[in-house]
Amino acid sequence: MDRPFPPLYYSEYLQLDGLLDSQHRKSEEYGAPAHDEMLFIIVHQAYELWFKQILFEMDSVIGLLSAEPVEEAHIGMCVSRLHRVTEIQKVLIDQLRILETMTPLDFLDFRDFLFPASGFQSIQFRMLEIRLGLQSDSRLRYNQAAYHSRVSPQHRDQLIEAEQHPTMFDAIQSWLERTPFLETESYRFWDAYRSAVHEMLDADRSVIERNPTLSEEEKSVQLLGLGETTAHFDAVFDPSRHEALRTEGKLRLSHRATLAALFVSLYRDQPILAMPYRLIAALVDIDELMTTWRYRHALMVHRMIGTKIGTGGSSGYHYLKSTAESHRVFSDLTNLSTFLIPRTALPELPALVRDRLGFVHKSGSR
Amino acid sequence: MDRPFPPLYYSEYLQLDGLLDSQHRKSEEYGAPAHDEMLFIIVHQAYELWFKQILFEMDSVIGLLSAEPVEEAHIGMCVSRLHRVTEIQKVLIDQLRILETMTPLDFLDFRDFLFPASGFQSIQFRMLEIRLGLQSDSRLRYNQAAYHSRVSPQHRDQLIEAEQHPTMFDAIQSWLERTPFLETESYRFWDAYRSAVHEMLDADRSVIERNPTLSEEEKSVQLLGLGETTAHFDAVFDPSRHEALRTEGKLRLSHRATLAALFVSLYRDQPILAMPYRLIAALVDIDELMTTWRYRHALMVHRMIGTKIGTGGSSGYHYLKSTAESHRVFSDLTNLSTFLIPRTALPELPALVRDRLGFVHKSGSR
Amino acid sequence: MDRPFPPLYYSEYLQLDGLLDSQHRKSEEYGAPAHDEMLFIIVHQAYELWFKQILFEMDSVIGLLSAEPVEEAHIGMCVSRLHRVTEIQKVLIDQLRILETMTPLDFLDFRDFLFPASGFQSIQFRMLEIRLGLQSDSRLRYNQAAYHSRVSPQHRDQLIEAEQHPTMFDAIQSWLERTPFLETESYRFWDAYRSAVHEMLDADRSVIERNPTLSEEEKSVQLLGLGETTAHFDAVFDPSRHEALRTEGKLRLSHRATLAALFVSLYRDQPILAMPYRLIAALVDIDELMTTWRYRHALMVHRMIGTKIGTGGSSGYHYLKSTAESHRVFSDLTNLSTFLIPRTALPELPALVRDRLGFVHKSGSR
Amino acid sequence: MDRPFPPLYYSEYLQLDGLLDSQHRKSEEYGAPAHDEMLFIIVHQAYELWFKQILFEMDSVIGLLSAEPVEEAHIGMCVSRLHRVTEIQKVLIDQLRILETMTPLDFLDFRDFLFPASGFQSIQFRMLEIRLGLQSDSRLRYNQAAYHSRVSPQHRDQLIEAEQHPTMFDAIQSWLERTPFLETESYRFWDAYRSAVHEMLDADRSVIERNPTLSEEEKSVQLLGLGETTAHFDAVFDPSRHEALRTEGKLRLSHRATLAALFVSLYRDQPILAMPYRLIAALVDIDELMTTWRYRHALMVHRMIGTKIGTGGSSGYHYLKSTAESHRVFSDLTNLSTFLIPRTALPELPALVRDRLGFVHKSGSR
Repeated sequence: MDRPFPPLYYSEYLQLDGLLDSQHRKSEEYGAPAHDEMLFIIVHQAYELWFKQILFEMDSVIGLLSAEPVEEAHIGMCVSRLHRVTEIQKVLIDQLRILETMTPLDFLDFRDFLFPASGFQSIQFRMLEIRLGLQSDSRLRYNQAAYHSRVSPQHRDQLIEAEQHPTMFDAIQSWLERTPFLETESYRFWDAYRSAVHEMLDADRSVIERNPTLSEEEKSVQLLGLGETTAHFDAVFDPSRHEALRTEGKLRLSHRATLAALFVSLYRDQPILAMPYRLIAALVDIDELMTTWRYRHALMVHRMIGTKIGTGGSSGYHYLKSTAESHRVFSDLTNLSTFLIPRTALPELPALVRDRLGFVHKSGSR
Repeated sequence: MDRPFPPLYYSEYLQLDGLLDSQHRKSEEYGAPAHDEMLFIIVHQAYELWFKQILFEMDSVIGLLSAEPVEEAHIGMCVSRLHRVTEIQKVLIDQLRILETMTPLDFLDFRDFLFPASGFQSIQFRMLEIRLGLQSDSRLRYNQAAYHSRVSPQHRDQLIEAEQHPTMFDAIQSWLERTPFLETESYRFWDAYRSAVHEMLDADRSVIERNPTLSEEEKSVQLLGLGETTAHFDAVFDPSRHEALRTEGKLRLSHRATLAALFVSLYRDQPILAMPYRLIAALVDIDELMTTWRYRHALMVHRMIGTKIGTGGSSGYHYLKSTAESHRVFSDLTNLSTFLIPRTALPELPALVRDRLGFVHKSGSR
Repeated sequence: MDRPFPPLYYSEYLQLDGLLDSQHRKSEEYGAPAHDEMLFIIVHQAYELWFKQILFEMDSVIGLLSAEPVEEAHIGMCVSRLHRVTEIQKVLIDQLRILETMTPLDFLDFRDFLFPASGFQSIQFRMLEIRLGLQSDSRLRYNQAAYHSRVSPQHRDQLIEAEQHPTMFDAIQSWLERTPFLETESYRFWDAYRSAVHEMLDADRSVIERNPTLSEEEKSVQLLGLGETTAHFDAVFDPSRHEALRTEGKLRLSHRATLAALFVSLYRDQPILAMPYRLIAALVDIDELMTTWRYRHALMVHRMIGTKIGTGGSSGYHYLKSTAESHRVFSDLTNLSTFLIPRTALPELPALVRDRLGFVHKSGSR
Repeated sequence: MDRPFPPLYYSEYLQLDGLLDSQHRKSEEYGAPAHDEMLFIIVHQAYELWFKQILFEMDSVIGLLSAEPVEEAHIGMCVSRLHRVTEIQKVLIDQLRILETMTPLDFLDFRDFLFPASGFQSIQFRMLEIRLGLQSDSRLRYNQAAYHSRVSPQHRDQLIEAEQHPTMFDAIQSWLERTPFLETESYRFWDAYRSAVHEMLDADRSVIERNPTLSEEEKSVQLLGLGETTAHFDAVFDPSRHEALRTEGKLRLSHRATLAALFVSLYRDQPILAMPYRLIAALVDIDELMTTWRYRHALMVHRMIGTKIGTGGSSGYHYLKSTAESHRVFSDLTNLSTFLIPRTALPELPALVRDRLGFVHKSGSR
């Protein structure tokens, strides 16, 4: 193939003239140049560039998973793109170390000039939360008015518009709900599985009761927890109970999708489930890294301003820390671990299903 | 110099025969070899090796700082050794990624064999908490009985014995309390500083009141927080109030040490305070990395066992997450940021003090 | 399931008494305790622990791939275990930062006591090189006598014995040679592919010739390189030429295996090739990380002893740096990139083959 | 202080409208959108943002060190800013992992559209090389014509202009040359040091000669190397020999600066030398990280295009790898390790000097 395209020049291709002329220190504008404001600007711009890339990957994955049917070949593509997101997230976390080379005293040299700008106003970060599927009520728990009033009307509209689109959570849920194989399972299969789990939970109960190192108070606390776990598990097989827990906000993933995710996790060694399993695991990775980022970011803010309020009038690091846990999107997938049982106790798959999970031709002949 | 020492052989020097023969999988012993148990053993052994190194560095630093007087040359040595601790902590955090290559299902292949062993039984980790200066009441909040009953009598004695020794917190506090320069400050100096901070807090108050994006409720919450901050700050100059807050457990660092740490942080550009400042910053780093490790570790546990109880009958990741925040040792140093004021607003140092903070000879002649 | 196993105690399970009593500083034994020798010992022990884990994973993968036929389900398992190796390698590289907190002057406090012990005597590291498939002539290029004379007779025997077993390179090669699908390709398919590549190489040639920024000398150098590339590529389709290049030591992977690896790389989007592709990519990752480790390690040594000779009388960092490039095992897989062509130019797969690469059942119905 | 500044809005402050509208995929423009081109653009833009930050820090450090006299307080500031540069460099290296989530096949989807743009055209990266002090002859060794002809006339002028300014190497060298203390040393002091080093080198010689594991050939090679080391060391005390080695290009740092750097490294435990030592160490860090980045970058390129030539017609990864070693700027500082001797063998400092290196006031009274 010949190359019929006009010659390209590095700095034009990357639009560097504009990019590298986008750092204007307020402290300089106000006649008190603060050296570290440059770092402050550039680190935030680097974050925004990466946010754009993450959004780009997320949108493509949501798109691929929303097709009906999803091409088998696309599952691997989704896994690769989500894996890319996790590699970016690792860098986002490490970048905090760069920002922490700015000391609290250095920050004060220009902090007053920034009022009331705030990271809360990063539209892309909010878009990211929305795309992932963070629910409004979690997102807005902090304060609805504030949440929306902090951004420009135009940005507010963008956010509201964005909330109308399918999210990663929606896409995964409906993809899981469409997983085949479950139909054909004889009642017996899930029945066997169910009693296997109950045996496991009973064993856990005896662990607590027999544990000499636990006080009575501790035991009751833990037995209570175990009770909830059991209730949660029973719900896995009882659509109505499951629905009830969703209404209470204790679960989010639909009954059918939960069953499918559990099935994929249990039999992920089957060739055809290898990629679907990695897809689920990638989302758990992303959720974990997002949570880690939120927490590390909160620690950095704490270090930078102590117990002061944020530049944008936010209540500071306490709030930020609280979001680390409350803003998780895929906990239902993480919590599946609770219901896994050892391979040794895993019921045989019905022959019919097993056949359909292998490859028919003899690629195994390698 | 000749080398009169008997020749050394790599594997004998490192005692590799023993070291590399210390991995015995229970699953193998019980006839059901689980591949991933090897990783589980080795990753924990790697952690214990690093814990030993951290304890070794901590003890040396505590020792150096406990000398009276502390040789100026030793401050730099302490900074280097604490910096080494932070580099190790970063690896401890990254090692979690290795462990996470073990999936929850793989863990189940051998989990039952480990009961009731638990990370709670890592004596070195507890030693580390004790050496840092984690207070019993925080450390034991979870459950005193359990805390001690989980370990062997011999280990329990080791822990109780360890609690008798001076901690990093003690060492830093007394070193700070012995900081010179403060004596000579005329009342006028701290007085100027005090009003500078009050101006800053008043400005913060107006930020809250003038902030259109805050609801009345939010404002009152934030004003309340600001009130506490102000009270906390006033205590910095009022020994009795400071003492009161310590009694309430809201502060831990002594009044005199707090004043010294604040002084060092404010005038850290003075050559002679450069190292002392880095020493304080290193402790804030260690505290932050320890907190990050605890949180990441909790996320890993969550992912591995979901909402189940831990192998040792511990209540699992909820408890682990709670320790991330509650087990901080040097928050009082991190919170100093709250009371820093911009260099521009910083009162001139009394000439006498300034002279004593520079180098007398003309090294500046470079 | 009940837990009929005797209770386990953390420190006994991990054999910590022995592990944590395996650090004896020579400098202390000789009455001149050097603080940093503890770090030196522990960092090397941490490396040896991880080497053991890597060897454990490698052996399992070699074993799985040596089975005939290789169970399809095991390919995913191999990918996961090799991925674990790469996560460990990342930590091995980061650990160098910990060692670099020891300054050259600190190292001198105990360096003389270690003579002539040397990292060259790490049997596990050599085992790792052997297992990967590093060829003796590369490994011994430095100096055969020295290579073997540095270690104890017992260790030497271990190494010689190890060289008798199949390596990762052997396993991958024979697994690739057994890849199906290639038989059925009509000559026409590879023929189309071949001319597509030739078009690409011709385009590259014109790039060089048309490039105004290149001097005549540069052009000739590059055209020479392109010539080699073309020769190398033609060999891909000519068993005898390929064999010739192997004899010259310019290639190592067999003709049939090379063809298979190329096929997998080109059509990796086909569901059934997704895992095989990831397997190949994982080996390229391991090779790259090993190379990075060697180079970083050489830089650390350079920094520590400058241009001095190593403790074991090795010629120091120059040699170490040279091994980074010369000791690569899977370059033939990395170099496949040379012969990839854009998807747009990729010839249609024969229908028969395409069918066999998809899943027969309608999992796509999701 | 009240905040009299106009309210600031996050996205305006960071100029996000322009920043986030600077990614235009050529593949899209040409009607064949390649998903991964977005990553390709953004990762390069992120690199350029960080390059700007590094240049900003470097210029500030060069400025501070070029003052006469250099304020003692500024040495700490330089150390902090260079430390920041190293934190950024670590992220630059880790970012390569993100780019490597793009496979060679994905790159081919848009590679042809980019011709002849090339990383060689990154003006900021070249500026960085120039600022560090990379000498033209190293920088241009590859090919002068090509080096300059690849960039636009305007950019070429920028580069030529930049070469007129003092570099980091110049700044450090002249700062070292101005180090005091050296004057007063009695001949006796350096004389004692000199013989201490000779003893050490003699011991090294006997190590080689007595080493049973070395072949005669190896021995002669190593003795040759030792000879050079000795010659190099003698030059440290013989200005004319030193000058000769500089002329041969075997050394770069001036005689006087070398002596000062050696002095600082040897007595870095003296409080007043603590920061100067850290300044030297920071430059060694930067050099090492830059070298690591070059090498890792070369590996990434190798993986992406195999043995093909680069988009800009560059000869590809072979050249890139060669620059890792040849483009080091501060080797003379790294090589100082060669001439360090154990503290135990270190000659007493003349009392006069020792006094001047301590702090006169009793800060030690802590």
